[in-house]
Amino acid sequence: MSPFADWIAVDWGTSNLRLWAIDAQGQVKIEQSSDQGMGRLTPDQFEPVLLGLCDGLLDPARVTPVLICGMAGARQGWAEAPYVSVPVTLSALGAGGVAPLVTSPLIAVRILPGLSQATPADVMRGEETQIAGFAALRPEFDGTLCLPGTHSKWVSLAQGTVSRFRTVMTGEMFALLSEHSVLRHSVGRDIAGDTLDEAAFIHGVRHALDAGGTAFATLFALRAESLVNATPPTALRARLSGLLIGIELAATRDFWSGQKVALIGAGALTTLYARALSELGPTPHIEDGRDLALRGLRAAYPHIFEL
Amino acid sequence: MSPFADWIAVDWGTSNLRLWAIDAQGQVKIEQSSDQGMGRLTPDQFEPVLLGLCDGLLDPARVTPVLICGMAGARQGWAEAPYVSVPVTLSALGAGGVAPLVTSPLIAVRILPGLSQATPADVMRGEETQIAGFAALRPEFDGTLCLPGTHSKWVSLAQGTVSRFRTVMTGEMFALLSEHSVLRHSVGRDIAGDTLDEAAFIHGVRHALDAGGTAFATLFALRAESLVNATPPTALRARLSGLLIGIELAATRDFWSGQKVALIGAGALTTLYARALSELGPTPHIEDGRDLALRGLRAAYPHIFEL
Repeated sequence: MSPFADWIAVDWGTSNLRLWAIDAQGQVKIEQSSDQGMGRLTPDQFEPVLLGLCDGLLDPARVTPVLICGMAGARQGWAEAPYVSVPVTLSALGAGGVAPLVTSPLIAVRILPGLSQATPADVMRGEETQIAGFAALRPEFDGTLCLPGTHSKWVSLAQGTVSRFRTVMTGEMFALLSEHSVLRHSVGRDIAGDTLDEAAFIHGVRHALDAGGTAFATLFALRAESLVNATPPTALRARLSGLLIGIELAATRDFWSGQKVALIGAGALTTLYARALSELGPTPHIEDGRDLALRGLRAAYPHIFEL
Repeated sequence: MSPFADWIAVDWGTSNLRLWAIDAQGQVKIEQSSDQGMGRLTPDQFEPVLLGLCDGLLDPARVTPVLICGMAGARQGWAEAPYVSVPVTLSALGAGGVAPLVTSPLIAVRILPGLSQATPADVMRGEETQIAGFAALRPEFDGTLCLPGTHSKWVSLAQGTVSRFRTVMTGEMFALLSEHSVLRHSVGRDIAGDTLDEAAFIHGVRHALDAGGTAFATLFALRAESLVNATPPTALRARLSGLLIGIELAATRDFWSGQKVALIGAGALTTLYARALSELGPTPHIEDGRDLALRGLRAAYPHIFEL
């Protein structure tokens, strides 16, 4: 069996990157990860980082294709891959790929584009490849995808086409409020292994849904609860989480109400979204997101390098 | 005329303090300010700071009364003055004052309490004295006070009695989002003398009111606007300000709709609130807040030290 990769897939994010060497049989030969994310690199540093991670994997007798998704294609990344505007059929994503200049004769690099939406203005970069992976796995899916995270994404997907999406900054807001606002005195720190105060979480979700537009204005009550009623930090932390996810769900009702919903993710945050959604109606299908980016890169590969 | 103060009034906040020496004719003899706010002091440091600021003002032949409002009365302050629960008649505020232990024989210190509300849970500390100052100035007032700030306060006041209030973290949220979130790349920095993009501000206010509960979920659109449409930072900064103030106004409609509204404050932020409120209906009366704390301390003084 050849010691070399047939081609290389890379999910190059802001903080980290993951790289997979694919062999001639289409199997993952080697997986690497690195903290050399886009945020730490100037444009001329991407190629050396990539070559370093590919050490021993490149056949000196041929040009090895490298397909990249994520923030490497941002304006401040390696080479800008301009957004493709929705509606987008994900199998056509590769048409928007760009080729950064490389000095090595051993690689041919393409970077996939992100998606944009004119009204309401929105963008994504990286998640579209996970979504393409999901669509490759379930081509018949007609419904909504939710990708919880620092910036949650809600996506309308039908037969492999994204018609619209919405980004909500819930995760970032939770981090800012719980670590940097006056509420930090009241909600305590996240302790690994802490059990969620589920009643307080659901109280927060329900309050946000019932309060309509006013939930955002009730955040200071968490501080007051700790001062006036000595409510414990674990309960207030769960309540804050519930309130913010509830505010997000109130604002994305048109995405999940009456729809088939698939949650893409893994871990505690995905579980919270599943718990909140189940409380409100739809029991979401949970799709482990860890390998969807690779699946999306695999799906795009033949459209780019084999045509 | 005596070189000494008849009594001393102090507004002791988290970051700063202001001190006024009042003469026997009731006039301000000397005004001092300092950055020795509660946040920087341990309990045993308050008295030396106070005595330092009173240097030369204390009559060695008598005990000089010192009346303090604000965060000096917080749990982590000089001595805790427990909150008084609404409804509260402001002229009775002094009954909740506490006397911290002092070592100097030249001063007798009282700290005024803050206000609390059981449902929805809320607290204030310092603003109640400004409100008492307003009530002393306009005893017949029946309506709503709005005190814009890091944590805005909305207060129902009638004939000197506070029946309810609500705190909204709008100012802190603006600071967190514009300085620490992903939006910081899009909204630029505040430049003194910059002219407000009023159309963008009002667009934000109106959008928040029209969007009901969903406005909070549209914040990421500001980032997308800058990436997709190259909308300039001054417009996006004004829009963010309008959105957050609009979200606050949507959530406090029961305070301002159909009510007489007085805005207490000074400067650019107060002007923004006035502009937004005027757009929606009530043209607020603006009351300069700078000396209302002193006025409130003056109003409370005879109830505490002359009874």
